[in-house]
Amino acid sequence: MYTALKETVLAANLLLPQHGLVTFTWGNVSQIDRRRQVIAIKPSGVEYDQMKTDDIVIIDLNGKVLEGKLNPSSDTATHIELYKAFNSIGSIVHTHSRYATIWAQAEMDIPALGTTHADYFYGDIPCSRRLTDQEIQTEYEKNTGLMIIDEFKHRQIDPNAMPGMIVAGHGPFCWGKDAFDAVHNAVVLEEIAMMALQTRQLNQSIKIQQTLSDKHYFRKHGANAYYGQK
Amino acid sequence: MYTALKETVLAANLLLPQHGLVTFTWGNVSQIDRRRQVIAIKPSGVEYDQMKTDDIVIIDLNGKVLEGKLNPSSDTATHIELYKAFNSIGSIVHTHSRYATIWAQAEMDIPALGTTHADYFYGDIPCSRRLTDQEIQTEYEKNTGLMIIDEFKHRQIDPNAMPGMIVAGHGPFCWGKDAFDAVHNAVVLEEIAMMALQTRQLNQSIKIQQTLSDKHYFRKHGANAYYGQK
Amino acid sequence: MYTALKETVLAANLLLPQHGLVTFTWGNVSQIDRRRQVIAIKPSGVEYDQMKTDDIVIIDLNGKVLEGKLNPSSDTATHIELYKAFNSIGSIVHTHSRYATIWAQAEMDIPALGTTHADYFYGDIPCSRRLTDQEIQTEYEKNTGLMIIDEFKHRQIDPNAMPGMIVAGHGPFCWGKDAFDAVHNAVVLEEIAMMALQTRQLNQSIKIQQTLSDKHYFRKHGANAYYGQK
Amino acid sequence: MYTALKETVLAANLLLPQHGLVTFTWGNVSQIDRRRQVIAIKPSGVEYDQMKTDDIVIIDLNGKVLEGKLNPSSDTATHIELYKAFNSIGSIVHTHSRYATIWAQAEMDIPALGTTHADYFYGDIPCSRRLTDQEIQTEYEKNTGLMIIDEFKHRQIDPNAMPGMIVAGHGPFCWGKDAFDAVHNAVVLEEIAMMALQTRQLNQSIKIQQTLSDKHYFRKHGANAYYGQK
Repeated sequence: MYTALKETVLAANLLLPQHGLVTFTWGNVSQIDRRRQVIAIKPSGVEYDQMKTDDIVIIDLNGKVLEGKLNPSSDTATHIELYKAFNSIGSIVHTHSRYATIWAQAEMDIPALGTTHADYFYGDIPCSRRLTDQEIQTEYEKNTGLMIIDEFKHRQIDPNAMPGMIVAGHGPFCWGKDAFDAVHNAVVLEEIAMMALQTRQLNQSIKIQQTLSDKHYFRKHGANAYYGQK
Repeated sequence: MYTALKETVLAANLLLPQHGLVTFTWGNVSQIDRRRQVIAIKPSGVEYDQMKTDDIVIIDLNGKVLEGKLNPSSDTATHIELYKAFNSIGSIVHTHSRYATIWAQAEMDIPALGTTHADYFYGDIPCSRRLTDQEIQTEYEKNTGLMIIDEFKHRQIDPNAMPGMIVAGHGPFCWGKDAFDAVHNAVVLEEIAMMALQTRQLNQSIKIQQTLSDKHYFRKHGANAYYGQK
Repeated sequence: MYTALKETVLAANLLLPQHGLVTFTWGNVSQIDRRRQVIAIKPSGVEYDQMKTDDIVIIDLNGKVLEGKLNPSSDTATHIELYKAFNSIGSIVHTHSRYATIWAQAEMDIPALGTTHADYFYGDIPCSRRLTDQEIQTEYEKNTGLMIIDEFKHRQIDPNAMPGMIVAGHGPFCWGKDAFDAVHNAVVLEEIAMMALQTRQLNQSIKIQQTLSDKHYFRKHGANAYYGQK
Repeated sequence: MYTALKETVLAANLLLPQHGLVTFTWGNVSQIDRRRQVIAIKPSGVEYDQMKTDDIVIIDLNGKVLEGKLNPSSDTATHIELYKAFNSIGSIVHTHSRYATIWAQAEMDIPALGTTHADYFYGDIPCSRRLTDQEIQTEYEKNTGLMIIDEFKHRQIDPNAMPGMIVAGHGPFCWGKDAFDAVHNAVVLEEIAMMALQTRQLNQSIKIQQTLSDKHYFRKHGANAYYGQK
């Protein structure tokens, strides 16, 4: 019944090790079918090279398993909160990719330093606040999602113009219109996180010009975009 | 009619992911046929592993498409200006290769620190000034080309002895006598950008001896070269 | 007689170059059969791509060779001491993997900076003290093992919650319930050593929240674990 | 007549790109046949993937070509001087491998910081002085060799216990008893150069204990070695 959705989510999960974003079973991709109100998500702790279509778990927005024999990702509750709050997103990717995780461990926003960043992310990529001890001890994964949402509201950031962020002490969450788009953004985030860290070794205070950031973001996004075909 | 030219440009574009210089569709190679006054250039936003000979776009020096169904690279106007100003170059390569981009983001010239650099680039590799807001907002890609040319004139650098540079906040442009030569220079630029960054972690102020730079550059270039065969 | 054990140890040794943890013949994996009181260990200085099942050496807990024509790893005496003192471990891995070795050379504990670390290692990963000149000159490899044990006792660290450490000026030793588990931990150690070093470039003093470390460690280990299947 | 020698030198040269030590045609390996007083060396500027046995050039100790149609490596004169002065070496490798070159560009000795270093190189790896302008302008490659020899004499270093060094502003030269041994040392040099650089990011002043360095060097070299088989 959900075969096409599960195949897409499997294929997108398999892209994570191909792009060097995950080690072992770390990381997970989910995709939502908004019409049917179901989410397909990677099972918890299963090796990528052994994962099959039927290992992908189908859940509803309360986290109830509708199809599949395995436990869904331990981060499922985070995904659910993000889907509920960010209506326009169709897929979520979580990894511990090295450089994005390094910025998360440093608990610092990833500064916008070049056009590679501006082509995809409009402005500095936010690093969340720490969770409180209570938020960690009770419903940790759900509270992680709520904190991300709160961070975007508080800073008045549009999740469509900022398709990812990093959770303090943990690592990146990215999203997109579908699973391939979300994985694409996760790859870009890792690339710009690496370049930002090394740029900071050369120059502690540089930032991209706002006009240049605008130019690059809007030549690829929105009504006046002219990058690509059509 | 332009099949051989398009095949060359396709092959050179495919070298970019092979050498680890590009992610996704980033980067582009063009080559000019100076006798026929046409340029072959990568289409905008097409995946490398799906690109075919007929996807390469043929344009004239006004940017008019002569052959091909796809839009040419969004950086086409930059290429055109460089071909018009630098008469001796036959090909241009633009990438967001990591370490060259890092120096561009830091808005610093890549200092000449060793013979690997001196074998190919005569002197520090210039990082451009920033574009003005107006230059960004109107004819951005064309103005990028004009700024590069201006930078070389202003600093009195010969584009034959300096087959590439970096644009502030953006990334590298390289060139060469043909598309394979230009890609070769782009690979070397990335290599020396990486080594220069790490050298600066050990030693903040070192520079190559001028005599040693001269020796290595001129044993490979010019009338008295003795490196290689013939 | 020990074929299955030797096959396991061979397979685990071959994972080391696959994961990029070793160069040439560096590194070694052993596994103990506690019922029979024998250890299977990699031979000394043999190339990985030529190693066969029968090259794996079977020794007893006094280091006496029971089966095999080759000399066991020069680090055998270290392995033996660890097996004698840490009753719960079934396998030991020693490598000179780059980033773990870098922290060992810097003679600094690897600080717990994120959830990737907390998922596997509970607290900072200890770097041992230096051996005394006498400990080096007489029974060096045995004394390395005794020093590791002493370090864990002195700091009151449970080897089950800290499946590895680094020896000052040398490199990492990891362990696990079997050879694949121990190699798994060696891969993770390298990953978190890399991320910790780069995190320190951005932020000199940050540490993971204790509550977050507890949460991640105990959602994967112990009676209340809920990560993975079952 | 020199087929076996040429095949060895070809095979050793091909190991350089396999180990990631060279880009394009950079780097060269030679081997001497001391009985016949001939050297086999890589031709200058030939691509590795097109190199054939007969492209390897046979020269005598005056640099005269005895066999082969191509020009020998432009660094030939350096190799010749080293063979004449260091009687015990059978092969020389020169590369621009990244991290060894970085230390050469920084014009700093590579400090002995761990047992990986001590297993192969006894003490800090010397970085040469700069050549004088005159040494560069006349017989540059020969003078590079003479300077290396002078550096070893001046510092009283035994080339058997220090199978390589770095030339200021240039890159590494390594040697060994034969071409495979010399390439092996070049790989190790790159590895320890990388780890030394990163160790210095964590700890500016640490050095390996002398006793530990002695222990590791002498458990692999000399009369009392016990590493490996026999």
